[in-house]
Amino acid sequence: MQPEQPPPAGRLQRIRERLPLWSVQALLFLDMKNIRYLTGFTGSDGALYIGPDCRVLLVDGRYITQARAEAGGFEVHQYQSKMDGLVDVISRHGRGVIGFEAETMTVATWTALKERLPGLAFLPLRQELEALRAVKDEEEIARIREAAAIAAQAFSAVLERLRPGMTEREIAADLDYAIRRGGAQEVSFPTIVASGANSALPHAWPQDRTVRPGDMLTIDFGAVFEGYHSDETCTFVLGRADAKQERVYQVVKEAHDRAIEAIRAGVACRAIDSAARSWIEGQGFGESFTHGTGHGVGLDVHEYPRLAAQSEAVLEAGMVVTVEPGVYLPGLWGVRIEDLVVVQKDGCAVLSKIPKEFRIIEI
Amino acid sequence: MQPEQPPPAGRLQRIRERLPLWSVQALLFLDMKNIRYLTGFTGSDGALYIGPDCRVLLVDGRYITQARAEAGGFEVHQYQSKMDGLVDVISRHGRGVIGFEAETMTVATWTALKERLPGLAFLPLRQELEALRAVKDEEEIARIREAAAIAAQAFSAVLERLRPGMTEREIAADLDYAIRRGGAQEVSFPTIVASGANSALPHAWPQDRTVRPGDMLTIDFGAVFEGYHSDETCTFVLGRADAKQERVYQVVKEAHDRAIEAIRAGVACRAIDSAARSWIEGQGFGESFTHGTGHGVGLDVHEYPRLAAQSEAVLEAGMVVTVEPGVYLPGLWGVRIEDLVVVQKDGCAVLSKIPKEFRIIEI
Repeated sequence: MQPEQPPPAGRLQRIRERLPLWSVQALLFLDMKNIRYLTGFTGSDGALYIGPDCRVLLVDGRYITQARAEAGGFEVHQYQSKMDGLVDVISRHGRGVIGFEAETMTVATWTALKERLPGLAFLPLRQELEALRAVKDEEEIARIREAAAIAAQAFSAVLERLRPGMTEREIAADLDYAIRRGGAQEVSFPTIVASGANSALPHAWPQDRTVRPGDMLTIDFGAVFEGYHSDETCTFVLGRADAKQERVYQVVKEAHDRAIEAIRAGVACRAIDSAARSWIEGQGFGESFTHGTGHGVGLDVHEYPRLAAQSEAVLEAGMVVTVEPGVYLPGLWGVRIEDLVVVQKDGCAVLSKIPKEFRIIEI
Repeated sequence: MQPEQPPPAGRLQRIRERLPLWSVQALLFLDMKNIRYLTGFTGSDGALYIGPDCRVLLVDGRYITQARAEAGGFEVHQYQSKMDGLVDVISRHGRGVIGFEAETMTVATWTALKERLPGLAFLPLRQELEALRAVKDEEEIARIREAAAIAAQAFSAVLERLRPGMTEREIAADLDYAIRRGGAQEVSFPTIVASGANSALPHAWPQDRTVRPGDMLTIDFGAVFEGYHSDETCTFVLGRADAKQERVYQVVKEAHDRAIEAIRAGVACRAIDSAARSWIEGQGFGESFTHGTGHGVGLDVHEYPRLAAQSEAVLEAGMVVTVEPGVYLPGLWGVRIEDLVVVQKDGCAVLSKIPKEFRIIEI
């Protein structure tokens, strides 16, 4: 195991300073991405307890060696059963009110904790924690940038190899392999390769359908580098385009450009969604843009904030978000164009590498 | 989208018959694997509401076309915000007590549902639902068998290509690509390729470490075929083995064989764990076997039941479980041997394909 650099101690410090504001004396984390963010531990299961005078990382036997190597400065507690481990650690250190991630803890766990530790109060935290990882530091942005670069390089290579008769599934497997060979730890999410009518499904699985001239081809892909994700979508036409394909593409592209133009620190996330959506609506495709305009990206491929009509969030410098408007015409095809950007004081920087101009790919 | 066969209607019928036993009038499902099991919908997000006179699948705009194609016989309800959708559907159909998956619903969702639907009661169900998918039908077993066959064929091909100087990461990427090209929809979980001292970490990430003669090499891998997972682990020695490597391998192999020998319908899961563990303990490696002996496999790669000392479950014919004892010697190396089996009335059938005899791989 070659542990990466441990996370900056400032992250834990910032959290501890907030405890009085939230009226809690301690915090229990179960979200593995939050735990990684605060401790450096990269395992798939565990828990983290932060009290006024302790910081305990709880893991099962599979992870004990790794946890000690990765989470310097944390006490590591081994459990057989996670609930027993939580009860052991919290009954040893706990007093007063313990805050926890309302979006992560299940009803089963909450119920069991309350039953087994009746002298303590457990307080669900929601807004308090949702933005914990939203603003990225330079190190994090560098990792996301590298993830985007690996993904783009793999994508360009796969595009060169595209031939009629290849199936969506083969293209996806080829791209995933190229991403992994290019230095990614894994792909960000199951790669979407959707051609023809499948491209009208925003989250299609790759099928055994073969690609052919005249197809719209949407590929939504990403790489993970040192835990950080990228997310990018390219839509092309294969061989030849009809007028409607080009027109809808240009509508989506303009929506994408307008949203990116609107991004800067201090702007409401819902205003970014509106910048894309109002354009698409004005062009008569409002009902065909069936999802939000974007989302935060980091240790999770979907994280705070959402760029959507219902979002209450405001952009801050250092947030990394996708901009991905789409128009989907069931039975025909769809277009989605997605770039990843980092919010800056006066605008944003695009981290994605593939140009998004309308493009016919010869196959 | 080429939908697979819809799930047998008997699954929904069986659930509905239980409602009075559980003192609930309706059920709300949020676990996507349970939703797939009951409806056939394969999307990544949604909800399912089953009332006495309705069955409603709730999805967002990305999935509306796909949900209608896959979930025949279900009303499909589109939401912008999932919570708003739940409130719409439940306030239209709901009365009395609504059971839900305590292991899946978060505290945030439960709190919001109770606030927004104050006239209704929401009852967490736990043991009632945990075994929902545990007993597989023939169709499901056939899919798992196919997943195991695809994974094994890919594994054998990758083993042929193994050369000194390859990194763990390259081997993992090669195996994943071969699994995908072999017809799998995806890999079951991030493939583990752990060599030398890394193999002492039961859940190591593949590193840039190159493999070399004398290494212990553990590869834990699986394929997903039509939603169903396989899970298998092989440990080899590369080039040459020392006496301790062979001895520990044989200890783990005997534990594995004893556990498989003990499997049949009607036996307690903890007895299977004990069959493996007591042997390893007797050989002096008890403290080095730091995890349970196995787990159920199906639409999830980890599901009910667990084969562990704390398990209360009893094996039934049709359950598909892993048997995967291991011994880990921190700083040196580790051995894990894992097969996937289907429980039968008088024993079990092994679905994994790779022989588990001690083997030195020439590289």
